[in-house]
Amino acid sequence: MPTATRAAPVIALLTDFGHRDHYAGVMKGVIARLAPRARMIDLTHAVAPQSIVAGALALAQSWRYFPARTIFLAVVDPGVGTARKPIAIETRSGARFVGPDNGLLALAAAQAGIGRIVELNAPRYRLSDVSSTFHGRDIFAPAAAWLARGTSIRALGPAVDRLIALALPEPSMTNKLIRGEVIHVDGFGNLITNIGAVAVATLSACFRGKPLSVRIGPSAAIKIYRAYGDAPTGGPLATIGSFNLLEIAVRDASAALHYRAGAGTSVVVGAARARYKD
Amino acid sequence: MPTATRAAPVIALLTDFGHRDHYAGVMKGVIARLAPRARMIDLTHAVAPQSIVAGALALAQSWRYFPARTIFLAVVDPGVGTARKPIAIETRSGARFVGPDNGLLALAAAQAGIGRIVELNAPRYRLSDVSSTFHGRDIFAPAAAWLARGTSIRALGPAVDRLIALALPEPSMTNKLIRGEVIHVDGFGNLITNIGAVAVATLSACFRGKPLSVRIGPSAAIKIYRAYGDAPTGGPLATIGSFNLLEIAVRDASAALHYRAGAGTSVVVGAARARYKD
Amino acid sequence: MPTATRAAPVIALLTDFGHRDHYAGVMKGVIARLAPRARMIDLTHAVAPQSIVAGALALAQSWRYFPARTIFLAVVDPGVGTARKPIAIETRSGARFVGPDNGLLALAAAQAGIGRIVELNAPRYRLSDVSSTFHGRDIFAPAAAWLARGTSIRALGPAVDRLIALALPEPSMTNKLIRGEVIHVDGFGNLITNIGAVAVATLSACFRGKPLSVRIGPSAAIKIYRAYGDAPTGGPLATIGSFNLLEIAVRDASAALHYRAGAGTSVVVGAARARYKD
Repeated sequence: MPTATRAAPVIALLTDFGHRDHYAGVMKGVIARLAPRARMIDLTHAVAPQSIVAGALALAQSWRYFPARTIFLAVVDPGVGTARKPIAIETRSGARFVGPDNGLLALAAAQAGIGRIVELNAPRYRLSDVSSTFHGRDIFAPAAAWLARGTSIRALGPAVDRLIALALPEPSMTNKLIRGEVIHVDGFGNLITNIGAVAVATLSACFRGKPLSVRIGPSAAIKIYRAYGDAPTGGPLATIGSFNLLEIAVRDASAALHYRAGAGTSVVVGAARARYKD
Repeated sequence: MPTATRAAPVIALLTDFGHRDHYAGVMKGVIARLAPRARMIDLTHAVAPQSIVAGALALAQSWRYFPARTIFLAVVDPGVGTARKPIAIETRSGARFVGPDNGLLALAAAQAGIGRIVELNAPRYRLSDVSSTFHGRDIFAPAAAWLARGTSIRALGPAVDRLIALALPEPSMTNKLIRGEVIHVDGFGNLITNIGAVAVATLSACFRGKPLSVRIGPSAAIKIYRAYGDAPTGGPLATIGSFNLLEIAVRDASAALHYRAGAGTSVVVGAARARYKD
Repeated sequence: MPTATRAAPVIALLTDFGHRDHYAGVMKGVIARLAPRARMIDLTHAVAPQSIVAGALALAQSWRYFPARTIFLAVVDPGVGTARKPIAIETRSGARFVGPDNGLLALAAAQAGIGRIVELNAPRYRLSDVSSTFHGRDIFAPAAAWLARGTSIRALGPAVDRLIALALPEPSMTNKLIRGEVIHVDGFGNLITNIGAVAVATLSACFRGKPLSVRIGPSAAIKIYRAYGDAPTGGPLATIGSFNLLEIAVRDASAALHYRAGAGTSVVVGAARARYKD
């Protein structure tokens, strides 16, 4: 058994188990039993059920804010019990990722710089009875706990060459327009798009600083504000959000309800045709 | 005051307080004040409101995955402020349970082996003002915290002879059929029944290995798969779930919605009449 | 960098971020990175979206149950990115509060005794890139973490003279009636009013102990019970709840649904006209 390291290791948990059940709690019990010193932090347990894209985005937007050697235990796993591999990833930035090889870990791990990938098949580092429905408890939580105890990732199983990729829609861009789409709706009903700050700045440069506007579906043009709070109460706005992506919001209300929009709704950025009333 | 033990004790919390309010948070504040070294783990705070059965099942399915001496603080308590007793239980396996004596703790405590039961009436180990509506904060959280500090369970109050039992429906079985029912719907809409793996294996032996099928209400026969992931996308399946009970699911969808089923819906296991198409 | 103190400091978190997203989790990552020894306790992340009143009430009803030097990190912040100040408060009772200066902290801080207020504008104690939409991550979480590490509140920014007040409705009272209103609906559908235990006791004294009744909107008179559990199953009741305020409930059901009531619904306490049937 490896010697425990000095600093209490952090395990951050992200799942789609929801809060109604005890499933996330049971995973934490398994970790507490195997790695009593590990600190557990809930990233979220309410990823949209079985939405690998939503989970991958949340993980990609979060990992860099955590302590350097954090172990991210991520379970959004529609293929549990089938051939998809359970894996762990060691990254060059120090972060570790544990979860199913279905694209969920791909964005975050690429950002962090993939070092070593292993398949979690060493029986010693799983629970003794592995069910076919709850790998979070039986395979992933034990792997995270053993990493937290200092076990080498090499001990957990054989090396895997490459990750299954996550297919995310890419925006298209001309010197007049950016066409993208909503990829995520957050808990406030804000619409997060796949259009990045750089793309918007580039288009703005093409127009020599003339104001841009955003249209979502057949909506009227939406003004881009620097901050949520700058928009009038109840009014729609677009802004570059905290994840450096264009977001569409309605102040003090839900943009998802207002625009009847969700993941996949098309979003276009272009020159503002008319002056805005403030 | 007793000497604190070396290892940080774990308190696992299960309530029906929900996540909208600060009630669970206040209980944790009380614990942090009385037992600064205790580690708190949320098992769930979203047991179906006032459903003692749902809470008892979640606890029974969870406790064995936690560290040996974990203190389970469980509050689903429709009779708060009435004559039902607040209790603590020491078990032979080491686990401790704190909560109301209304059946909530009965399944888990019986599995763990009941040692000593006490009524929590020693004023010294309650908050100084006990309300009639929030025993979680005023009686149960302090009791759990004092146990975590090393206080003997005997100090918390006088011995209680036996627990109030939890009335759970039992399945009936012949050599041709098992008749049971749904006892719990989880957060994915999976239907968990009161039919155990042993009963299914026994019936299978009666039929010399011929395939079995499951019917829920007036539904068509549902095939029993080894794993969720083995069923076709969108298709129904039955499987022995992670708690060793027969579960009915619809892959990538909610079985509760699909079959309009919930706790109490009847479930029958018998010989498959026709061959299944895969 | 200041020397860490011996006892692990507690940071209690209250937000309206909800549980669907990873926002609360990211704040915790920031704290874990800056203050590895701090213990984080979730008070709630499900304050009604952008409801400063609901957040202020929850904080006022909770802070005194936590360890003396707890740092309360509270974010309900419809004005994020505008001129409202980010602040920290040191109180005479020892509790610290961090959040926006919009009334959210006012009730709790007044109860705890305001000592020093500072504006959080020292760049050293913020994340290096401050977004305009997520001050919880970029300003508030770092401030709480630095306080937990032992940094003096004076280092975080210049003194602020006084807090923005929270406008809460006050009940009106004659020697015959108390007129108040619902100010909060909890997760069980219980209706919490702005009518305190002292006002009810005073009115009762005016009537020389004759029974009082409560009316909500056009409802029939509701009897005041000592405890929830004293009322018949399914029956309505009023009681002085755990926060010393008059609450209206329906046993084993939601009073909010039963009376179609919510924040702002009027509530009147007066003499019971007729005898109650039990």
